[in-house]
Amino acid sequence: MFKINENYLKLPGSYLFSTIAKKVNAFTAANPDKEIIRLGIGDVTLPLCPKVIDALHSSVDEMADAKTFHGYAPDLGYEFLRNAIVEHDYQKRGAEIYADEIFVSDGAKSDSGNIGDIFSVDNKIAVCDPVYPVYVDTNAMAGRTGEYLVDQQKWSNVIYMPCTAETDFAPELPTETPDIIYLCFPNNPTGSTITKDELQRWVDYANKVGAVIIYDAAYEAYISEENVPHTIYECEGARTCAIELKSFSKNAGFTGTRLGYTVIPRDLKCGDVTLHHLWARRHGTKFNGAPYIIQRAGEAVFSEEGQKQTGEQIAYYMNNAKTILEGLKSAGYTVSGGVNAPYI
Amino acid sequence: MFKINENYLKLPGSYLFSTIAKKVNAFTAANPDKEIIRLGIGDVTLPLCPKVIDALHSSVDEMADAKTFHGYAPDLGYEFLRNAIVEHDYQKRGAEIYADEIFVSDGAKSDSGNIGDIFSVDNKIAVCDPVYPVYVDTNAMAGRTGEYLVDQQKWSNVIYMPCTAETDFAPELPTETPDIIYLCFPNNPTGSTITKDELQRWVDYANKVGAVIIYDAAYEAYISEENVPHTIYECEGARTCAIELKSFSKNAGFTGTRLGYTVIPRDLKCGDVTLHHLWARRHGTKFNGAPYIIQRAGEAVFSEEGQKQTGEQIAYYMNNAKTILEGLKSAGYTVSGGVNAPYI
Repeated sequence: MFKINENYLKLPGSYLFSTIAKKVNAFTAANPDKEIIRLGIGDVTLPLCPKVIDALHSSVDEMADAKTFHGYAPDLGYEFLRNAIVEHDYQKRGAEIYADEIFVSDGAKSDSGNIGDIFSVDNKIAVCDPVYPVYVDTNAMAGRTGEYLVDQQKWSNVIYMPCTAETDFAPELPTETPDIIYLCFPNNPTGSTITKDELQRWVDYANKVGAVIIYDAAYEAYISEENVPHTIYECEGARTCAIELKSFSKNAGFTGTRLGYTVIPRDLKCGDVTLHHLWARRHGTKFNGAPYIIQRAGEAVFSEEGQKQTGEQIAYYMNNAKTILEGLKSAGYTVSGGVNAPYI
Repeated sequence: MFKINENYLKLPGSYLFSTIAKKVNAFTAANPDKEIIRLGIGDVTLPLCPKVIDALHSSVDEMADAKTFHGYAPDLGYEFLRNAIVEHDYQKRGAEIYADEIFVSDGAKSDSGNIGDIFSVDNKIAVCDPVYPVYVDTNAMAGRTGEYLVDQQKWSNVIYMPCTAETDFAPELPTETPDIIYLCFPNNPTGSTITKDELQRWVDYANKVGAVIIYDAAYEAYISEENVPHTIYECEGARTCAIELKSFSKNAGFTGTRLGYTVIPRDLKCGDVTLHHLWARRHGTKFNGAPYIIQRAGEAVFSEEGQKQTGEQIAYYMNNAKTILEGLKSAGYTVSGGVNAPYI
């Protein structure tokens, strides 16, 4: 008789955003006359920018002609996109990352869930509290988090790093040593960031204790202040301890278009095994590439026009954030965020 | 110190198709004047059909306008696509499957690799031999396959079901009882099929021993003979023992466009836990939906024109198969397949 993965049964309720959706639906049904302002999920509302739309149309045309049609993509992503990513997101910032260290995917949510595959179940994770639920739920599914303690709404085998107003919503180095540390800056959901010097402390700590940092930089494009790092690879030593996750969802409005990437430097090793090798194997075996037309759309984001147009979209969302921030403040709430991230 | 998933180290060499690609590249470099006919990987060569191209262009236009823009998709797929799938692929064939039992994904390769997540590591799998390598490799990654026996090129804890010319490349019921049975018909790589009565025997067997059948029907559209089932749900009792995987890659040329789906009937249970619930949780936590424009492209495949146009493409590939079959035969090889599948 087949057996299920019992870890799934330990998960409390359903995935956070499904729960929110159900509650919203129930409220709407009961109050059809009430207007709802949804602040729960970070979806975008602006259409894809003209440069991206042009790239989509022209690549769709390529798919209509046998001479320019594209079948299976390279497992790890097209060179044109990996090169554009490296040039724009790393080389320009002086971060040492190479095109063959970029793994193109269908989005940062998939990557942040799937990255656990290459690690032993026997690793202890550390997460910020509050935290994007995917990090914890996917580790729970893998059996890495112990038991769920209903009264505390916490897992028994997870190191929680409180992010409170006292520390400006930044975590402090944990007292118990973790094996895998999830950091997300600019932070979802608090909107906080840390400086380059502060991030350097995390990199030094991870290298010292032999931990891996999974660094989610999905909101990097919203950074407006000078001293906030755009990538963890701006820090010295990050190549030996950090994996970075990036998304096209928030910088270019790809939430319904799906594109992201993961960076694994070849210097990140366990003994003589590179995590790059393990992830390449995972990616090549359980994934078949992001669609050609979507990869062309991603490439367009990095063009001069694409940067200008998506920059205007980011400014629009940041202005929304400002409106929300000020509105909530004037309504008497204590709020923060909205400076280097759309989150409040 | 973090630890890796040691199961990855047991995997022999790299993923089959990466190995083939490397060999081809090396041969091409050494023999630049030789022309290579690639029979290794089942990629398509015809462009996307006009109806699909139209759907892509018009949905890209929707993404260009705030009024019709689509952000995050429903986790499990848009209703329009799930309804089209159910109507065309199940209801029309008298198979009892409902729209909310369809999980839209980025392709059957991802699904066939990821489906293992919802099962315990402590399950014994049975696979046809030869077999699509993703089934075995992903189970090896999860630690379900024992040790790799280099001399036999087999895993110690996998039930191999030989598919040889003697049985027309169909497997026989295994003597040792498996927990999870992978079946793929029309078969990749042998091109063989089984009749509805033969498949019914597998369904009855799975229900009797409490096994789950993971039924890969990616090549269903190539079936030309009457008595070959198009879905496992044509068989009585399949709702309590079978998961079905489907692809848009081969019927509609989506290898570089990426779309697929998994069917999990609500009657498929372990105790009182439905696998539907577990997969919904997995899908909602580790995946963020297939792109809106690609789901619209998938919907177009099911339209009257889409069916006509993709039908012509299938006829073209089947004619290629016939040419290859006859060419190899006349060159003195013993070959089969090419009747209900493009494989020889």
